[in-house]
Amino acid sequence: MQRFIAEVLLPLFPTKSVGPLGLEALDDGAVLSLPEGHLVVTTDSHVVKPLVFPGGDIGKLAACGTLNDLAVMGARPLAVTLGLVVEEGFPIDELKRHLVSFSSVLEKFGVALVAGDTKVMGNGELDGLILSTAGVGIAEKFVPDAGLEPGDRIIVTGTVGDHGMAVLAAREGLPVEGGIESDVAPIWPLVEKALAMGGVKAMKDPTRGGLAAALNEMARKAGVGIFVREHEIPVRLEVKGIAELIGISPLALACEGRAVIGVSPDKAHAILEAIREDPLGHKARIIGEAVEEYPGKVILETEVGGRRYLEMPLGDPVPRIC
Amino acid sequence: MQRFIAEVLLPLFPTKSVGPLGLEALDDGAVLSLPEGHLVVTTDSHVVKPLVFPGGDIGKLAACGTLNDLAVMGARPLAVTLGLVVEEGFPIDELKRHLVSFSSVLEKFGVALVAGDTKVMGNGELDGLILSTAGVGIAEKFVPDAGLEPGDRIIVTGTVGDHGMAVLAAREGLPVEGGIESDVAPIWPLVEKALAMGGVKAMKDPTRGGLAAALNEMARKAGVGIFVREHEIPVRLEVKGIAELIGISPLALACEGRAVIGVSPDKAHAILEAIREDPLGHKARIIGEAVEEYPGKVILETEVGGRRYLEMPLGDPVPRIC
Repeated sequence: MQRFIAEVLLPLFPTKSVGPLGLEALDDGAVLSLPEGHLVVTTDSHVVKPLVFPGGDIGKLAACGTLNDLAVMGARPLAVTLGLVVEEGFPIDELKRHLVSFSSVLEKFGVALVAGDTKVMGNGELDGLILSTAGVGIAEKFVPDAGLEPGDRIIVTGTVGDHGMAVLAAREGLPVEGGIESDVAPIWPLVEKALAMGGVKAMKDPTRGGLAAALNEMARKAGVGIFVREHEIPVRLEVKGIAELIGISPLALACEGRAVIGVSPDKAHAILEAIREDPLGHKARIIGEAVEEYPGKVILETEVGGRRYLEMPLGDPVPRIC
Repeated sequence: MQRFIAEVLLPLFPTKSVGPLGLEALDDGAVLSLPEGHLVVTTDSHVVKPLVFPGGDIGKLAACGTLNDLAVMGARPLAVTLGLVVEEGFPIDELKRHLVSFSSVLEKFGVALVAGDTKVMGNGELDGLILSTAGVGIAEKFVPDAGLEPGDRIIVTGTVGDHGMAVLAAREGLPVEGGIESDVAPIWPLVEKALAMGGVKAMKDPTRGGLAAALNEMARKAGVGIFVREHEIPVRLEVKGIAELIGISPLALACEGRAVIGVSPDKAHAILEAIREDPLGHKARIIGEAVEEYPGKVILETEVGGRRYLEMPLGDPVPRIC
């Protein structure tokens, strides 16, 4: 996918920006220059399968995904648009449930749905439902992926891989003792607490490709190495167990309610404490730091004390994860 | 669809606006209040079938549809986002051709693609390709659907129904003598010429449901009647012929490069002349006027001199038209 975007998609669009951050940054949203503050715009198409999974559904996922892309840009969400593509004969009640999930998230933050579009495709032309969103937010000071400098600490705001594993388990009917719930949730309140402390340098939500993809992108874009300690990375035991069983890394599984935040070393503990006061941030940890060595690479100190590259996942281990 | 939007979709979203025009207006885009001028945001999902048709393809259609929604709000296009959903195994070269079509339209106006997202669905889960777009534009003074007052003249900027008929003919293999081409084209330059004259009160692009739907919406939103003369409405002979043959009204067929513009009577002829100077506007006509009688209704004076309601089409006669 990364190669496809770099080699096929990007060259097709000579004009990529109307402000300090455009398409070429491959960040979570675009920053458009405006007279007052920065308007942030983002887009996502949601094709998750199954439409309902433990902890959420496509509606909640689409709303959180959009608001979270704005949040990790440092933008307070302002408005969203929704393009709905629905299979002919899809039950109206089920559609309404998903849209109520979507709307509930927006309402919590007073975010307006300001424009929409609805299309129908025939039976056999589409499997269920697609929610395509755009989000608009305002950032006093936006936070790019690329802001890391050597010495900056890396915070992850909660356990990783819950969403990916919950969807995978629901889809494949994996027997999960106790159950695994998606972490899908809107993270703006948590992010706002972190931003208020000052010292936030880089931020990203680890969705497709999980923590591994997010860290690799942040390292590459900033031209720094990132050193992380496996035993500091919060992973639920159930997630870890099943991931080992089926041979995938929980670090490559998508999250939908987490952020990876790079912060100045002098502010790291204050920011960590602020994040931990948020209901979504109780399990936040400092998992490592940016370093001068190995620019563009992520080094993992494993639980047994060895070191290896944490590679960019070749693709998400779970298709249609979001 | 209209009932579905009014009864099912709208009640689900209590917050519908962050400025003077939001979702409830069901206009072509939303206007967000900003310190300087108005930022206009719009969204569309494009599912046209077939992906290539005489005069265009899904890429050109998606770009024009998005920019035209901004244009008929009175907004100069600034930036777009693209959510791409593609069927697994879709030929890359074909995808690139569609995206080049998309990009070419943007480049003509220096419009940036500022954010994007790509998802893949399996074989049998999606028929081909969906392009979901959002557009952002800036309007000095935005033009709503609802601005008509009695006495205002109604201008249509060119022949109607070409796009709908071109797609229908391509899909069904209808034998069309001489060929019918879609009118798909970006109309901002034409709209800009009209706006420069002053006196533009209401504007809409007649896409799904064609001219009939656009006029009915404009009449209903403004609480005026609209009186139009059938013999003044430009329709290509080929389009008219086939439409009669298969029993549908060309006035209900989608256009993708036209605008319906309501203008002050004192400016009507100056605006018409300005539009006719644009390459897309040679066939522009004043087709009627807003009246006090029959509020919310459209009255058609037929070619044989009778009068009847021009009803809101129950649905687009052609599914997956855009």
